Amino acid sequence: MPIIHLSLNFGWRDFNKMDSKLRNRIAEIEWLFLDVDGVLTNGMLIYSQAGEEIKIFSVYDGHGIKMIKDKGVKIGVVSGRGSSALEFRLNELEIDCIVMNRNDKARALEEIAKEFGDSVYNSAHIGDDLPDLEIFDHVNVNVAVNNAVAEVREAADVCLTKNGGEGAVREFCDLYLACTKTP
Amino acid sequence: MPIIHLSLNFGWRDFNKMDSKLRNRIAEIEWLFLDVDGVLTNGMLIYSQAGEEIKIFSVYDGHGIKMIKDKGVKIGVVSGRGSSALEFRLNELEIDCIVMNRNDKARALEEIAKEFGDSVYNSAHIGDDLPDLEIFDHVNVNVAVNNAVAEVREAADVCLTKNGGEGAVREFCDLYLACTKTP
Amino acid sequence: MPIIHLSLNFGWRDFNKMDSKLRNRIAEIEWLFLDVDGVLTNGMLIYSQAGEEIKIFSVYDGHGIKMIKDKGVKIGVVSGRGSSALEFRLNELEIDCIVMNRNDKARALEEIAKEFGDSVYNSAHIGDDLPDLEIFDHVNVNVAVNNAVAEVREAADVCLTKNGGEGAVREFCDLYLACTKTP
Amino acid sequence: MPIIHLSLNFGWRDFNKMDSKLRNRIAEIEWLFLDVDGVLTNGMLIYSQAGEEIKIFSVYDGHGIKMIKDKGVKIGVVSGRGSSALEFRLNELEIDCIVMNRNDKARALEEIAKEFGDSVYNSAHIGDDLPDLEIFDHVNVNVAVNNAVAEVREAADVCLTKNGGEGAVREFCDLYLACTKTP
Repeated sequence: MPIIHLSLNFGWRDFNKMDSKLRNRIAEIEWLFLDVDGVLTNGMLIYSQAGEEIKIFSVYDGHGIKMIKDKGVKIGVVSGRGSSALEFRLNELEIDCIVMNRNDKARALEEIAKEFGDSVYNSAHIGDDLPDLEIFDHVNVNVAVNNAVAEVREAADVCLTKNGGEGAVREFCDLYLACTKTP
Repeated sequence: MPIIHLSLNFGWRDFNKMDSKLRNRIAEIEWLFLDVDGVLTNGMLIYSQAGEEIKIFSVYDGHGIKMIKDKGVKIGVVSGRGSSALEFRLNELEIDCIVMNRNDKARALEEIAKEFGDSVYNSAHIGDDLPDLEIFDHVNVNVAVNNAVAEVREAADVCLTKNGGEGAVREFCDLYLACTKTP
Repeated sequence: MPIIHLSLNFGWRDFNKMDSKLRNRIAEIEWLFLDVDGVLTNGMLIYSQAGEEIKIFSVYDGHGIKMIKDKGVKIGVVSGRGSSALEFRLNELEIDCIVMNRNDKARALEEIAKEFGDSVYNSAHIGDDLPDLEIFDHVNVNVAVNNAVAEVREAADVCLTKNGGEGAVREFCDLYLACTKTP
Repeated sequence: MPIIHLSLNFGWRDFNKMDSKLRNRIAEIEWLFLDVDGVLTNGMLIYSQAGEEIKIFSVYDGHGIKMIKDKGVKIGVVSGRGSSALEFRLNELEIDCIVMNRNDKARALEEIAKEFGDSVYNSAHIGDDLPDLEIFDHVNVNVAVNNAVAEVREAADVCLTKNGGEGAVREFCDLYLACTKTP
């Protein structure tokens, strides 16, 4: 069962409802891992007639990622799919580590740990569907977007109020910033 | 009148509201037939300046289709329209049988039966608009997406809570998996 | 003030709330005129990097237009804008008369009358914004989509429950079919 | 704290709730400044496989901008991003002054003042996110779209009821026209 269901609306935070240990775990993450479809996007898969993928991201997520990168948090993306449109956006966001076309997400995390060290396990992961459960077992803070499937919501420490692609990542970044600010 | 209006939210299921005979009919389907516009998509028809169609699908439907294919259910698509963007997505989903540009859907089903055998009638069909009523007469389980027209909702055994293109197909796949699991 | 606020949900109709004279006026229309942006679309203007317009229509509207054309109603489109993507869709729908890039809609209707005769005034017009008020003065049935501006809603005989691009045109077609069927 | 939360619905206005001084300040603006992503759009960043941006605007905003330009208000756009698709739309709207790819928005406004004179400070600015707060300090009327972040909503004189890209700019234009009409 999730410890906290947020109702942040970008900036306002109800810390009274929030366990101080969870708050500390959030404040101390060194990495934030993100799924793509359903988290950085709203889960729409858009195909042109040439079979090329068009991807839709949120400008709000971009601002949030920039703010927590400025605080020293590293950003990783682990996606079961991959596309050129996605790469353009991830380059623009200066993501620290990108793994595409991998559904064995726990194994992918292991490989990232080999390159970046065990700090990758001191992290939060934002997910929306069953393959994200694998990563949840290995990181410190499990986060579900609002439109995540039931199994992911139930396994999450934090359930965001925003859907993927509609500011969910920004909402978590705002929460991180709030957690690091409180005395 | 539909026998069951679902409120699944991806994973949770109220089996108490559900007739055990319908549950068995669902558990025993050999094929799942899908309409495209309004079922695998939300009914938007998107045209580029060159007159090419862009199609939007749901990543959640893809996961669901993969899960029930793994259980042995075959997937068929019968659409009144057709496009190259659609073919790319259907190939990716490894759909077993595709019929495009056909509005006489009952006749199309007959032809599919000639190729694949009478197991195609032991099936569920998910539809949203009047041409789907023809198929409803020939299959075992009639399913309407949430945004289906009134006539289709009334003729359905199951009314999904999700709109087409927003996870309706996944919702039915979750329901199928639940029906096959119960003792 | 609009005479009727519909709550049809595609197919169900509350004729008790509906004035029989209005019902007759609807049943007798010879033409249906449609605005494009905000009526056949939801008002989104989509630009590619090359400055080309992408347009999004509804598959439900297409079915509706086909059904009332089969009953003999002619379809006209009068739009303040124009694009190649729009032309592709209108050709597909076999629209009887298309006027693009014209904001003086009353004058445009006059010119259409010169070509097609005075039957064009025995018509309904579906609109969403101020330029549609001009046409409202000259036709028999004024129709506003749900998301029309206040001035258009107030001048309308019928306020649809669907937004433009989300099935509003289909909703009116269903209403027309219902009006022609009642004894 | 915002002075007024609008509930206009395009055209209807509750002037009773509205401070007459604010009404006057709105009636006297010489410029309207607009953010792009989240104000003229709904904040979606859309990438094609070639890395090109597709942008979605609202036809309602275009009508509104045209109406207040006809009344003599100049329109400026200051955006932290830039794209070719954006330029096409801004040219179509005949925007008086365009600054793209600038996040130091106060400095950008200063430079605009050098070219266009101090009338640029007698203006309203519509924003949605933190970089807009800089401009709020220098203009007469601070406006937040409905989906603005909490900090921007709190710093606003007017909170619109429409989201960016869904008619928020039109809503403010309607409000301006109403403010200039009242005796």
